[in-house]
Amino acid sequence: MYSIDLNSDLGESFGAYKLGCDEEIIKYVTAANIACGWHAGDPMVMTETVRMAAAHGVDAGAHPGLPDLMGFGRRRMNVSGAELKAYIKYQLGAMAAFTKAEGVPLHHMVPHGAISQFNEEWAHAICDAVGEVDDNIIIYAIAGSCLDKIARKEGLKVASEIFSDRAYMDDLSLAPRGMDGAMITDEDFAIERCIRMVKEGRVTGLSGKELEIQGDTLCVHGDGPKALAFVRKIREAFSQEGIDIHGI
Amino acid sequence: MYSIDLNSDLGESFGAYKLGCDEEIIKYVTAANIACGWHAGDPMVMTETVRMAAAHGVDAGAHPGLPDLMGFGRRRMNVSGAELKAYIKYQLGAMAAFTKAEGVPLHHMVPHGAISQFNEEWAHAICDAVGEVDDNIIIYAIAGSCLDKIARKEGLKVASEIFSDRAYMDDLSLAPRGMDGAMITDEDFAIERCIRMVKEGRVTGLSGKELEIQGDTLCVHGDGPKALAFVRKIREAFSQEGIDIHGI
Amino acid sequence: MYSIDLNSDLGESFGAYKLGCDEEIIKYVTAANIACGWHAGDPMVMTETVRMAAAHGVDAGAHPGLPDLMGFGRRRMNVSGAELKAYIKYQLGAMAAFTKAEGVPLHHMVPHGAISQFNEEWAHAICDAVGEVDDNIIIYAIAGSCLDKIARKEGLKVASEIFSDRAYMDDLSLAPRGMDGAMITDEDFAIERCIRMVKEGRVTGLSGKELEIQGDTLCVHGDGPKALAFVRKIREAFSQEGIDIHGI
Amino acid sequence: MYSIDLNSDLGESFGAYKLGCDEEIIKYVTAANIACGWHAGDPMVMTETVRMAAAHGVDAGAHPGLPDLMGFGRRRMNVSGAELKAYIKYQLGAMAAFTKAEGVPLHHMVPHGAISQFNEEWAHAICDAVGEVDDNIIIYAIAGSCLDKIARKEGLKVASEIFSDRAYMDDLSLAPRGMDGAMITDEDFAIERCIRMVKEGRVTGLSGKELEIQGDTLCVHGDGPKALAFVRKIREAFSQEGIDIHGI
Repeated sequence: MYSIDLNSDLGESFGAYKLGCDEEIIKYVTAANIACGWHAGDPMVMTETVRMAAAHGVDAGAHPGLPDLMGFGRRRMNVSGAELKAYIKYQLGAMAAFTKAEGVPLHHMVPHGAISQFNEEWAHAICDAVGEVDDNIIIYAIAGSCLDKIARKEGLKVASEIFSDRAYMDDLSLAPRGMDGAMITDEDFAIERCIRMVKEGRVTGLSGKELEIQGDTLCVHGDGPKALAFVRKIREAFSQEGIDIHGI
Repeated sequence: MYSIDLNSDLGESFGAYKLGCDEEIIKYVTAANIACGWHAGDPMVMTETVRMAAAHGVDAGAHPGLPDLMGFGRRRMNVSGAELKAYIKYQLGAMAAFTKAEGVPLHHMVPHGAISQFNEEWAHAICDAVGEVDDNIIIYAIAGSCLDKIARKEGLKVASEIFSDRAYMDDLSLAPRGMDGAMITDEDFAIERCIRMVKEGRVTGLSGKELEIQGDTLCVHGDGPKALAFVRKIREAFSQEGIDIHGI
Repeated sequence: MYSIDLNSDLGESFGAYKLGCDEEIIKYVTAANIACGWHAGDPMVMTETVRMAAAHGVDAGAHPGLPDLMGFGRRRMNVSGAELKAYIKYQLGAMAAFTKAEGVPLHHMVPHGAISQFNEEWAHAICDAVGEVDDNIIIYAIAGSCLDKIARKEGLKVASEIFSDRAYMDDLSLAPRGMDGAMITDEDFAIERCIRMVKEGRVTGLSGKELEIQGDTLCVHGDGPKALAFVRKIREAFSQEGIDIHGI
Repeated sequence: MYSIDLNSDLGESFGAYKLGCDEEIIKYVTAANIACGWHAGDPMVMTETVRMAAAHGVDAGAHPGLPDLMGFGRRRMNVSGAELKAYIKYQLGAMAAFTKAEGVPLHHMVPHGAISQFNEEWAHAICDAVGEVDDNIIIYAIAGSCLDKIARKEGLKVASEIFSDRAYMDDLSLAPRGMDGAMITDEDFAIERCIRMVKEGRVTGLSGKELEIQGDTLCVHGDGPKALAFVRKIREAFSQEGIDIHGI
């Protein structure tokens, strides 16, 4: 029996600004990566999103970002490891207040945007932050990344994350968005590829090379007009293929 | 035997901006009210301030403020009770990450600036936030205020806060800063007054009326050129009067 | 021949957050009130919105707000007159950089959100800011408000603003949103009312009393699903009534 | 007769946070680089600093920074050329409101912190921003930098900036702060070196190589305990050497 967790970024609205269709997507995923008020989200949005996750039995996780609301946390900033660690501790703690209030654990964390493009210094910062705040928090780390390795070596809980719509380089890093073929836009092909990653532990890299990959959680998008249709479709395909979707 | 807790606002630096002489004041107080990154403070400052409090055996508390760094959280903003509650939960949680990392409890919380000028709606919001995040957190509430009463009624832990340098109205509210005589600038008189509040439970109001007041914790300032000298002086006076200074 | 200016709030997107359907609304109005980056808008959005206004021959104005992005500038903050004046100068200047770059004048300014609920101190602050930065900027002031009067007395350029969807109190102030009947939701009635204000200079107040009102510019909304349909409808009705729509 | 402009970063306070001793330094320099509210400064501080510059006959300039108050604009952020251009236009415009209000021109601009470590894309962005907002603004560009060259090629007004306390690489770039010998801490040597740069147009690089350098303006620091003493000392030395200190 095969099994996979489905995670999605939620809680990205801010003040008067609404982003995504959280109340729909939440029905189809098993893990919510909830913005923590730095690159997106605010305490009212966090309240509602955690409440919604709890109500649907979806695991509530933190999605910490850089202090760059104007750039949605996507622009690399030259922050030190010590700074990044402190920023992540802050956001994990803030999110934990809301999960505690709703009576659910802070289940996992996923680095957002520019933080997800970590080097070893940043990967250590992320692990140290989790270790100091609550080592029950599962780190969702890109499969094969240095974060995945470092977190395991440090004895932290880790789930390896795979992507439905991103092509892989030979070292399992995600092909940069600008590169030809980096984004997988054909939905049926994306789904077939996911099925193969889950069932066979293999994926064809952008170079054509066969790569080994192990995923515990699959990232699906929570916004955009096609997000909802895609997540329904992938659930149906997984069901037909005997892949069980449930949380970690 | 008389006893009192001495609290002071610390950790108000931000980025390149340094405020106060925390590393000196910390030696003389028993409770640190640490800014949570909204009106002052940032995650690096929080890290260092909580670490410093832990090292000195000083109780680490949260000092949440309004989202108004430019106004240092002093300007009243028309936020709803639901918003205030969410803002305080966020800041309590963020601070708890740092106390947890340093192996100390989040001991107390004190509303900062404009939040300290609460009405009943805001007082309920403060209590609800504490109750949902961690009801071991002691609320430092202005003695006789509606927060003091509501928190006690809701079964939360409360310490009544008294002030060395602020004159009292007949209802125990603090005389507004603009009012004649509102600020007590004579240090010896301020100290005598504190001694009387602690030992006799009485203070002369601005109107001349004798008022009953019960204080568990006394607020002393952590910045300004005279802050350090004053806290030393008040400690010496308390010692001579048989008033024990220790945490709650 | 009757004539009226149609103004709308535009440029309220921020970073990854999109608000309103500016590219549609801009075709139907004569004046754009463009957010200046404090309560909404950012420099990229300002660039595009001013460019769009210039391309459509729509007057570009500044819509300055309080430093409260999380509250969209709608929550009253207790800022002093000196602070408000400085905040408005800052935002007028910032907007003027973009209008200059596109070769159009900074035509007008309209206080946003909580600033639009000015008292006399704030009204003076607004006038002083405009007077010091560029007295060619026309102040769009709620018809009959103290800003309207003070600005005229100070010799500044003023356009009196009237509203299609808000009921009036006897002193021409807008009925508070919470009050019964404050919002006019029947579109046909709203349009008839506008026509009467423009052609007869009269409106029936919420109390039933007949009020005299003079408007130079009519505010129409730029967001919400019905905004676009309403502005088209009001243009058609005005055309049939011989009311010319053009800028000031 | 030799001549040089002395510039210093001023107006870096923010809200309750005070930085530097502007009211002293302003007496000894000829050009003030005033923070524009993004990495430092706020509209109240800008009002006062521009007023102070005007009162002392010191040229008021803009010192735009990245949107990173927590990092004081020193941390490189991966913003695009289009974003940087828009950010600089915004800040130039905002500062121009205050210079206009005080009846002085916006004399110059100096990129702050991480923006001063521009590549060609950013250098073009800076030039385009100045060209579109007001081409009377003089760009203070590190002598020999790509900004210096590009701005001159685009026909903009440029002043080449030299530094008293920073060692030079062979290509006239500033030696990175971490490098051995990068910071010149011996004041007498620093002053001798400045005199030689001004009178001979030569400086010894960190490698020992003799380099040609032309400076129109010399940067002196406005904060730190030694800043004031140093600026006095350098003025005296310049006076003895027949170097006239005046604005551009």
